[in-house]
Amino acid sequence: MFGFDDKIEFQKNNNDILTVGEILIDMISTEYGDNFESSTYNKLFGGSPSNIAMNVKKLGIHSLVASAVGKDGLGTFLINQLRNADIDTNCVQRTDYPTSLVVLTKSKSSPTPIFYRGADYHLAFTPVLEEYLINSKIVHFSCWPISMVPVRHSIEKVIEKARENHILIGFDPNYHPMIWQRGEDGIRYVKSIIGKVDIIKPSEDDAERLFGKDTHENQIRKFLELGAKLVIMTLGKEGAIVSNGIETVKYNALATDVVDTTGAGDAFWSGFYTAAIKGYTIRESLALGFAVSAYQLKYTGAIVDLPKLEVIKERYGL
Amino acid sequence: MFGFDDKIEFQKNNNDILTVGEILIDMISTEYGDNFESSTYNKLFGGSPSNIAMNVKKLGIHSLVASAVGKDGLGTFLINQLRNADIDTNCVQRTDYPTSLVVLTKSKSSPTPIFYRGADYHLAFTPVLEEYLINSKIVHFSCWPISMVPVRHSIEKVIEKARENHILIGFDPNYHPMIWQRGEDGIRYVKSIIGKVDIIKPSEDDAERLFGKDTHENQIRKFLELGAKLVIMTLGKEGAIVSNGIETVKYNALATDVVDTTGAGDAFWSGFYTAAIKGYTIRESLALGFAVSAYQLKYTGAIVDLPKLEVIKERYGL
Repeated sequence: MFGFDDKIEFQKNNNDILTVGEILIDMISTEYGDNFESSTYNKLFGGSPSNIAMNVKKLGIHSLVASAVGKDGLGTFLINQLRNADIDTNCVQRTDYPTSLVVLTKSKSSPTPIFYRGADYHLAFTPVLEEYLINSKIVHFSCWPISMVPVRHSIEKVIEKARENHILIGFDPNYHPMIWQRGEDGIRYVKSIIGKVDIIKPSEDDAERLFGKDTHENQIRKFLELGAKLVIMTLGKEGAIVSNGIETVKYNALATDVVDTTGAGDAFWSGFYTAAIKGYTIRESLALGFAVSAYQLKYTGAIVDLPKLEVIKERYGL
Repeated sequence: MFGFDDKIEFQKNNNDILTVGEILIDMISTEYGDNFESSTYNKLFGGSPSNIAMNVKKLGIHSLVASAVGKDGLGTFLINQLRNADIDTNCVQRTDYPTSLVVLTKSKSSPTPIFYRGADYHLAFTPVLEEYLINSKIVHFSCWPISMVPVRHSIEKVIEKARENHILIGFDPNYHPMIWQRGEDGIRYVKSIIGKVDIIKPSEDDAERLFGKDTHENQIRKFLELGAKLVIMTLGKEGAIVSNGIETVKYNALATDVVDTTGAGDAFWSGFYTAAIKGYTIRESLALGFAVSAYQLKYTGAIVDLPKLEVIKERYGL
């Protein structure tokens, strides 16, 4: 039970957050367009959990990334980016598959990216990964690694070990049929995971893809019925609704100045986790998560040069 | 038997060449480097057989492309490039897999590209493909489509139907372990194909990857022993050696002005096929192939604005 005025009790482990799953190259068009007309693309560090690991480090806590890249120059580039951010890369595995890559087109209409999955779904559950996991307070993953085998089996072991060791589990149910392995009911599998995690943060679109169209209140109820303990449903410009099954709280959007929505969800997670680790209550941590997200929205790109959490707290008068 | 002073007798079919296999996006770094350090990449039309189809059209004969792309913007871009070149795209299939893509780094040391294979290896042998095939004089493919299933099964049917219908088969044995499906002996499979085709054009490096290091003469003998009928072994700056098993002819390199070697092999094939279709002897067609290759070497990129074959013939005094 996550009481809004409670602090989360973490295990006394050395590391704060371990993110498990995709690290990848984003190839983003330099020109605006809806259908990859652009002839030039910029290569950027990407992957939602890896962005969270980068963000929380800047906000002021410790993070580790467990992921897999190829034995290629793009894999080396990603590892070097983590090292430059002073993140331990012992859990980044190098595989015989190409470093995963996503081609995106800069657009105001959010066209579907093109996914090239390689190394990311070959992450193995190794003794090193297990050791880093049981030395962490929080473990976080998204739909990517559960969408394909063999990495799904690694995530299943991560969940099992995390529960045994009372490590908080955060799950981003960013389900999209495009990433799911062919011929399988991804929705059913995502639903089967929800009861095994502690905190989930669906967007309105995620909820609709999983349950079909419905009211916000009904969507939240469905997540709770599946066993979610704290549901944070984001509504874009309309803010967010958060429920622990007993109390439901509406948050208005803090952002007044939206330049680029890329990475806004990851920024929320980053602020929320950092605040919870620093000993703020859930209510305060949620507010700080939305403040970091609002800060991020003023800049372009998934990776923004975030200041320490305390600076953002001050800036938003929290 | 391909006598050097003979003309190739083709079937009286409407289309000249059908290329079967990869059509893909080349993402090439804008800056030089050996390990994908460049942060900007240009999106280009690529895939060796598709380049040949584009080239022969400019040189003055008819071509068709049988290939598979994704239902995505990059697939639409490739199809539009073919249409702009006035090439029939009825044999370009759209699949649920992402359009295949290769990331390359501009370098003088030819670092290994990173291969993202998707739609290309899902090309199906359909009634439409069969109809286009039996209406062509030449069919051409490279190692890409035989390196993975299911497209390999389509190529096996293409070979069977081409032989039944006396269509000339050209094969580029550009074997590379990086493109081959895991856990299979690609070399053994490539060798098993050689006896089923008419003309092959290995580079020195291709021969070494297939047979290990040896003299040029021995390498050519090995291809002939496997059943190749005409072997064109290219030696880079040293030209080429061609053998039909009875006669062996050395060609010196025509190129005096090498700006970029990308696509030089495809340019050779394009000139050779165009000349053979236009009724030149094999000896003349080889010379014209090397002339088109020399012309291509003066420009940057796989796709060069080639003139008609007759202009190149005149230019090189053939």
